Order: sequence, then C-alpha cells, then structure tokens
Amino acid sequence: MSSGKILVAQGGGPTAVINQSLVGVVLEARRFGEVRRVYGARHGVRGIVDEDFVDLTQETSHNLELVGATPSSALGSTRDKPDRAYCHEIFKVLRAHEIEHFFYIGGNDSSDTVRIVSEEARAANYPLRAIHIPKTIDNDLVGSDHTPGFPSAARFVAQAFAGANLDNAALPGIYVGVVMGRHAGFLTAASALGKKFPEDGPHLIYLPERVFEIDRFIADVKATYDRLGRCVVAVSEGIHDAAGVPMLARLAKDLERDAHGNVQLSGSGALADLLCEEIKQKLKIKRVRGDTFGYLQRSFIGCVSDVDAREAREVGEKAVQFALWGDRDGSVAIQRTGFYSADYALLPLEAVAGRTRTMEDALIAPSGTDVTDAFRMYLRPLLGSGMPDAYRLRGAVVPKIGR
Amino acid sequence: MSSGKILVAQGGGPTAVINQSLVGVVLEARRFGEVRRVYGARHGVRGIVDEDFVDLTQETSHNLELVGATPSSALGSTRDKPDRAYCHEIFKVLRAHEIEHFFYIGGNDSSDTVRIVSEEARAANYPLRAIHIPKTIDNDLVGSDHTPGFPSAARFVAQAFAGANLDNAALPGIYVGVVMGRHAGFLTAASALGKKFPEDGPHLIYLPERVFEIDRFIADVKATYDRLGRCVVAVSEGIHDAAGVPMLARLAKDLERDAHGNVQLSGSGALADLLCEEIKQKLKIKRVRGDTFGYLQRSFIGCVSDVDAREAREVGEKAVQFALWGDRDGSVAIQRTGFYSADYALLPLEAVAGRTRTMEDALIAPSGTDVTDAFRMYLRPLLGSGMPDAYRLRGAVVPKIGR
Repeated sequence: MSSGKILVAQGGGPTAVINQSLVGVVLEARRFGEVRRVYGARHGVRGIVDEDFVDLTQETSHNLELVGATPSSALGSTRDKPDRAYCHEIFKVLRAHEIEHFFYIGGNDSSDTVRIVSEEARAANYPLRAIHIPKTIDNDLVGSDHTPGFPSAARFVAQAFAGANLDNAALPGIYVGVVMGRHAGFLTAASALGKKFPEDGPHLIYLPERVFEIDRFIADVKATYDRLGRCVVAVSEGIHDAAGVPMLARLAKDLERDAHGNVQLSGSGALADLLCEEIKQKLKIKRVRGDTFGYLQRSFIGCVSDVDAREAREVGEKAVQFALWGDRDGSVAIQRTGFYSADYALLPLEAVAGRTRTMEDALIAPSGTDVTDAFRMYLRPLLGSGMPDAYRLRGAVVPKIGR
Repeated sequence: MSSGKILVAQGGGPTAVINQSLVGVVLEARRFGEVRRVYGARHGVRGIVDEDFVDLTQETSHNLELVGATPSSALGSTRDKPDRAYCHEIFKVLRAHEIEHFFYIGGNDSSDTVRIVSEEARAANYPLRAIHIPKTIDNDLVGSDHTPGFPSAARFVAQAFAGANLDNAALPGIYVGVVMGRHAGFLTAASALGKKFPEDGPHLIYLPERVFEIDRFIADVKATYDRLGRCVVAVSEGIHDAAGVPMLARLAKDLERDAHGNVQLSGSGALADLLCEEIKQKLKIKRVRGDTFGYLQRSFIGCVSDVDAREAREVGEKAVQFALWGDRDGSVAIQRTGFYSADYALLPLEAVAGRTRTMEDALIAPSGTDVTDAFRMYLRPLLGSGMPDAYRLRGAVVPKIGR
C-alpha cells in the first residue's frame, strides 16, 4: 500500500444503519498500521469525480460512534450510475491521491457501480481494491441471507402495522398501507410480524412476486370485511399486472425515471388513494383509509433493530479486513449460521451486481396474500430485542338486562 | 352510590396512551370500597345504546398494565354524536344497570358528548355523575396546558422529521410532510423539535392558524432551495385559504363528512401530492417527495413519551377521585406547575365542550412559517426521556489536488 490512503462512500437510498457500516470501515481501518488516512467522498461516486473529500481520520472515535447510531447517509448519497467515461474521471482523482482502496456502501445499483469501477480499474491497469458493502431496505441482494438496513425498516413496518391494526379495530373500516419495494416484497411481507392474535391485521398482503388483479383484490377485501367487519391491507408499491406494468404506472400521467431507468414509485400517495377509491366505489364501504409509509420507513429516527445495527457495523469492519488481508475485489455478504447467528463472506462482484433477489416461493403462502411460518422464522430474529407487544382486554361480557 | 357500578368508554380518534387513562380509571376505582363493578362500553356511547358491556372488574391487574401500554382504544371507539333522543337511549340502559358514574375518554367532540349526557341526565332527574377524561393528539382542548396523546404523537412527528431531514440532506431535493391537525397546528409545529443544527429541516412550517397562500408557499420553498439546495417542509392537513376553505377541499371531488360535519382530511395522500405537483411545475425541481403521516402518527406502536404515558394514567385516576370524592360533573384538565411538573383540575364541562384551542400567537414566529423558542420550551419536556438525537460528521475538508 503506497499512499496509505483509503476511500469510502455511500450510494443509493439511505437506511437507518448505513452509518454503522461507514463507522465500521473507519474504526477498523485505524487498526491497520499501513492506513494513514481514511477519506470519505461526499454524495457517493459523484464526490469522487468532484474531488469532494472529507478526512475521516480527523473525526473523534466518540463522534464516529454517535454518527454510527444516526440514520441516513452521513457522507451524503447519489443516484449516479458511472459509465466508462465517468470511471476515467474517478481514476484521475484516485491516482492523484494515490488511493488504492475503495469501499462503496450501497444496494443493487451501487454493487453494479463497484463492478464497473473494478473492471475499469483492471482494464486501465490501475491497482485498485474495490469492495462493495451491502445496504438496502429492499433486501434484494443475491447471495446474502439478508441485507443491512432491511431489518430496521422491517421493524418499522411491523410496528406500524401493529399500531394500524389496533387503530382499525377501534374504528373499524378498511385500511390500506403502502410499503416500499419495487421488485422484492420482503419489506411489505414484514407487516405480517405486526400480527399477534388470529383476527389481527394485516389480513391481506400483496407482494410484487405475485400478479395483482384488481377484481381479485376487491373480492379478497370484501371477504375479510364480511367476516370481521374490517380489513387491514399491506400493499407493495411494486404491485403490477400480468404484463409487469406497475399499478401506479396505470394511473400516473408523468412518470419520473431515475438514472437507472426505474419509474419513481415512492414519494406520492397515489397508489394508496387509487386502491381506496376502488374499494369505496365497488364495495360501498364508507370508512376507507390509505397511508403511504414513504420515507418514514427508511429514515425514521429511533426505530432500529439492534441486530441490524451490529451487523451493519460488522460488514464495514469485515470489508476492511477482506481488502487489506485479501487479494480480490468483491461484495460482502451476510450468511446465517444459527438461530440466530451470522458470519460474513466476500462474494465475487459479478455474483451480486445488477441482480435482484425476490422472495422465494417457500416464504409466500399458497393464497398469495400471506406469508408462511418459514418467513416468520426468517425475519423474527432480525427485528432484534425489545420489540413492542400489543395486549388486549380479555373482555368478559356483561349480560344484557337494559332493554 | 346504590349499585356500586361505574361505566367507562372511549370516543374519537385513538392515541398511543388512551388505554393508560382507561387503566387509570379501573385500577383507581378498585381502591374505592363502594365500587363493586367497573364496566366498559365497547365503541364509546354506541356501546351504551347497544348495551355492549364488558366487565373490567374481571381483568387481572397485570393484563391491565399491559393493555395500558398498548396504543389505540382497547374498548373500541366511535364517531357518534348523541342528540337528546340518543341520550334517552343511553339513560334507559344506565338505569337498568343502576350505573350512576360515567367516564368518557375523548377529545373535543367527546367532551361535548359528556356535556349533552350530563345536561340530559339533569333534565331527566337521573342521578348521573359524568366526567370527561381528556385525550387528543390535536392538543386543542380549551383550559388544558396540553392533552394526553399529544406528546406521544408530537414525539413521532419530531422523530419523523429528524429522520426526513437526514434523508433529504443525503439525497437533496424538496420534502413535504403532511401532519394531522384540522384547526390546531400544535402537532405540525412539533416538527420543529426534530431540528438540531441551524441548516436542518423543517425549514418551513405551515399551520392552520395562518392563511395559506400557494404563491407565497412556492416563493418560500424557492428561497430555501436557492440557499441550501434542499428544503424540508411541514404542512398541516388543515391549511386553508383566506376564506377558510381547506386546501384539500379545493381539489377533492367527493368530500367525505363525519357525524360532526367535519370534512375528512386524513387517510389520503392528496394534499402532499398536490403541493409536490405545484413545486415541480412552478420551480422545475426534479426531486420532490411528499409523505402523509396519516394514521402512523397516532397509533404507531413503540413511540411513546413516558411523560405522556404517566399523565394519561393520572387523568384517569384523578377522574375517579373527582367523581367519588367530589360533587359535580366536569372535564379533567392538565395544568403546568413547573419545568417540568403538572397537576390536575376539574373544569366545568361548558368551559371545554365544543370549544377549540388553537396555537397562541406567542408560539408562532412572525414569519408565520416557524415556531418560537416559547413553543420549544413548551413542548420539549412533554416529549419525555430518551429522545433519539442526530449527530453528523464534522467534515474536515481534504484539499483538491487531483485535477
């Protein structure tokens, strides 16, 4: 290691624990005598091209610990997706600083960024070690048991539905909660962990892994409403028809797309409102309410899984070890080793980059509107300790005498 | 007290701590030897007319404690507003059970219900003691320093904006968060408590206490965006034009009204979407996101102010003491006696019922889009202990050498 400088950056959507990974990199790197400086690029790869660096070596350990416990990306993020020309701009800067270690904390798109940068470095004969550190609330990285950030977002969703169910039981009607997740339904499925008693909601869960049919949806809601006098529904923002067209795209006039070509699904309450309108019109039910969890579910301060926080820290630490003790680029993955225990591996970037994991069939109930116990067993330990619990009155009935 | 039976019920929108008041009534009533049975009416006054009672005397103390810590109304709620005929139906049932003590936990509308029932009882010469126990996330009861349920909802809003600000700082753009509150802006104003550093959001706060002008709004957003490259906005669902017409009413086709004649403002993302669309069109800013906090802010499980929980319990306890040791009907009010300390008083029902408190001028900044330090001093102690805090990197800049 010539210069003793390493570089870390954060890309894509923030999570509640992404700074744990950043802090894991910085503190672990300090243990290596050959690391003299740890630089952070502001706003992801964009900050490399702009040469917008901060010297994280000057941060106190105590402040780093506090930043680690703070949600969202402390270095800032970006949605930029580098092409070859962009990568050459990156190299110019890395070369000037003699930076030979690059750590990028991000999801699907960011892992693809690391892959491109790694390949371009090899093609340019630049001695770069590039490591992808996983992070995404979508839980859609191939090769990982789960991804840091998902458990805390899942905890938010489970707690939100536990509360929404209680609210809906007090003032009965239909409640539709729309959850993030373009292709993978893991986060929407987490709503099932908010359920305790058999009559609790969510009574219906709609995932992007299954085709969404509006008539079937209305019939499902009606059946639950007829049985219980109320219905709580969890819906993924990514639900789509048999042709793969998102339900939201059917009604939105101007579709916003990001640099990766994805239609913008979040940041609007349109899908919930559309579904509520359908229910009102078709079923003539008066009290129909829709909430879109939006950005609350990924950045709410004060709803973190301790298991998630620990693992997010550890993937950062392991990334530094893989980089400085190892001899290849790659993507850090979490592998489950017990109930509950995890270990970390370095996967080839090609095995992860640009691929999308969706929910396995064994996790989805045959009805298509519920999860299996396998999913509950999978998710429960990730939610961490101190999950709030709902209790109810046992309700001894008083005999009627008044009328 | 002839029969030794007392009756308690819950009305209006649920809160995170309304069951603390219920449990306060039940456990305190058990200390009075003359109370033999504590009945709960399911779904508010509707449950009295339907004679749908549960015997809370049979609940274990331990289960009551657990229910107390569970959000939403454990007995169920209602939006029914009794008229004279409805009250006569109530009396028929109360008479049959020889119930002479009625405790109703609720907000504005519920206090009016208690007033009507109290007056009708007097007119019918029925010896009823009727006590209103306060609860509302809107904080809009006249005569109270604040209302149980508000502090926990305020804590949710503050935590949500603390997180939304961090998210918006990482991926800059415009963020609009819509908060509940028809006439009173207290809950929207609570967003200011999520702010720590001077550049943090919310940068603009729109309250129903001030006239909302869309052109002024766009200009405010533009000024902040020009200065910081981003803007976080808190908006009350109750914002209205100079004529008092809600902004939402200007765009909604079918206005839903409840039994109290109120236009339905919650349960739809329409207002946030409208405001975001205006910003996109007028300012040509690409990244504009809107969230509607909806039902999350009043029933989320696991976001409770310990101060709120304690006071909600105490208003229930005090209600029983006022009823059994006192000689008049009334509404229990929280009065501030220190920084921070509170005591309880019994106000005449006429002083509270049907009236609406809004934010005092001293709490709103002259700009009309921020709160004053007086508001921060007012709210901070109510949010309770263990508020999560946001930290940031100090960010020592690395000199540019690469280009």
